[in-house]
Amino acid sequence: MVNLRSLSQETEIIPKCELLTSPCDAGGYAQRVKVDKRKDREGMVCSEQLCATLNGALFECSPVLSGSGVFDGTEVHEASAILVHLTRAGAEPACYAPDIPQMHVVDHSKGSPVEGESRNVLAESARIARGVIKPLAELKASSVDAVIFPGGFGAAKNLSDWAVKGKDCTVLPDVERVLKDFHASKKPIGLCCISPVLAAKVLPGTTLTLGQNDNKSGKWPYAETIEGASSLGAIVVPKGIEYRGDELIVSSKDIGIEKSMYQPTTTIW
Amino acid sequence: MVNLRSLSQETEIIPKCELLTSPCDAGGYAQRVKVDKRKDREGMVCSEQLCATLNGALFECSPVLSGSGVFDGTEVHEASAILVHLTRAGAEPACYAPDIPQMHVVDHSKGSPVEGESRNVLAESARIARGVIKPLAELKASSVDAVIFPGGFGAAKNLSDWAVKGKDCTVLPDVERVLKDFHASKKPIGLCCISPVLAAKVLPGTTLTLGQNDNKSGKWPYAETIEGASSLGAIVVPKGIEYRGDELIVSSKDIGIEKSMYQPTTTIW
Repeated sequence: MVNLRSLSQETEIIPKCELLTSPCDAGGYAQRVKVDKRKDREGMVCSEQLCATLNGALFECSPVLSGSGVFDGTEVHEASAILVHLTRAGAEPACYAPDIPQMHVVDHSKGSPVEGESRNVLAESARIARGVIKPLAELKASSVDAVIFPGGFGAAKNLSDWAVKGKDCTVLPDVERVLKDFHASKKPIGLCCISPVLAAKVLPGTTLTLGQNDNKSGKWPYAETIEGASSLGAIVVPKGIEYRGDELIVSSKDIGIEKSMYQPTTTIW
Repeated sequence: MVNLRSLSQETEIIPKCELLTSPCDAGGYAQRVKVDKRKDREGMVCSEQLCATLNGALFECSPVLSGSGVFDGTEVHEASAILVHLTRAGAEPACYAPDIPQMHVVDHSKGSPVEGESRNVLAESARIARGVIKPLAELKASSVDAVIFPGGFGAAKNLSDWAVKGKDCTVLPDVERVLKDFHASKKPIGLCCISPVLAAKVLPGTTLTLGQNDNKSGKWPYAETIEGASSLGAIVVPKGIEYRGDELIVSSKDIGIEKSMYQPTTTIW
């Protein structure tokens, strides 16, 4: 496996590092608006930009999972899209997840929490990773070239408690360490769906996209997230979810390419 | 939603119905052998053939899930690939799963069963279906145009007990009913990964592909499945997993396009 680190020692090919965010649940909407269907999945969009940022070279990238299932863990289709797209672009993904209990367990057929049940985030994330996964405590920026956080409520319930406390949330110490570690190392950070709030909390003043404030259309049911992130000092740039160059922003000071978040209740495949 | 049934009443466009099976875990291998990467995922291959069989028309197709997680349920990446590919081809997927307890629960981070834990197949499948799922008891061939079974051990542990009893297995009554119902109605049946054994058991004499008998290469770790299916009277055609026309077979008497199964321990994305 040739990776960017070894290449860069001789050739200095590492481009300007970037932080990437992408729209949540873009698939269903993108399909309806007839954008390029090959690029209509959030994880694809985010990981594609990440691959482009890394100049098409082979590299190692670590998805950080937060369970398995949109309502209490990682959104499985976002994670699958990320893994597919990264491997097709030549990346070697190595999944990580925190070895902690989930905030709660949601019966996804009913949409309600299950009283008295407890599940472990690492064990549930392994369902997506097919058993090949490591504890988040072992992830270090010195070991891989990029990190990417799929969406799903796990990011707001297990990697942080944003779902309960909003801007007053606490971010899991290992998540904060990883974000600051990659940021300080100027290595790319990909953030899908609700995950950009993690950066808003631990990287003050960062520039993010979180969709649109206008909720009248019903397309932005979680638009209040923008208000929370802004109150933390994040610069939230309103953007649409279409796959278009002008819906991406590049923020060199924040090591960021960012794309707006979208969280409808539609399907995403 | 225009579907084939309504169209066919006037135009008779329903083509010869087909039963489809495809290789399990083709992604990892296909990527290594450098076949067309856009077509290297099992669910994609199977659902693409299903879409082709249905002549490109809009249609309703029902994935039947068996949990969420390769070792005790549906393989999430196969299911995601199926859902993506069907929707991109114009299908309207409506997921179903049996409302029964799983055979057991496997800690996917350890690969071992969890003593004393019980999960419901419908509730776990809803993690893939994002909450939009119905009990398998409600699925009828008269209501949709096609059915497709993703792989994962759930097919051999929850939809049947093939994983324990092999050819002496019992198939869940609702699965048997659905397969016989679609078969009698000459509507397409897609079967991925280990799922073709369900048809081998309940549709005697059917023609299947289940990969290769030769296990020396290590590429066919579950090749004994062929022996079990053959002993039930199934005609098992040895086929590779590459995405090539000559690795597909068409069996009109069994309403079948079939493609060989592949079950390595590699990743599939």
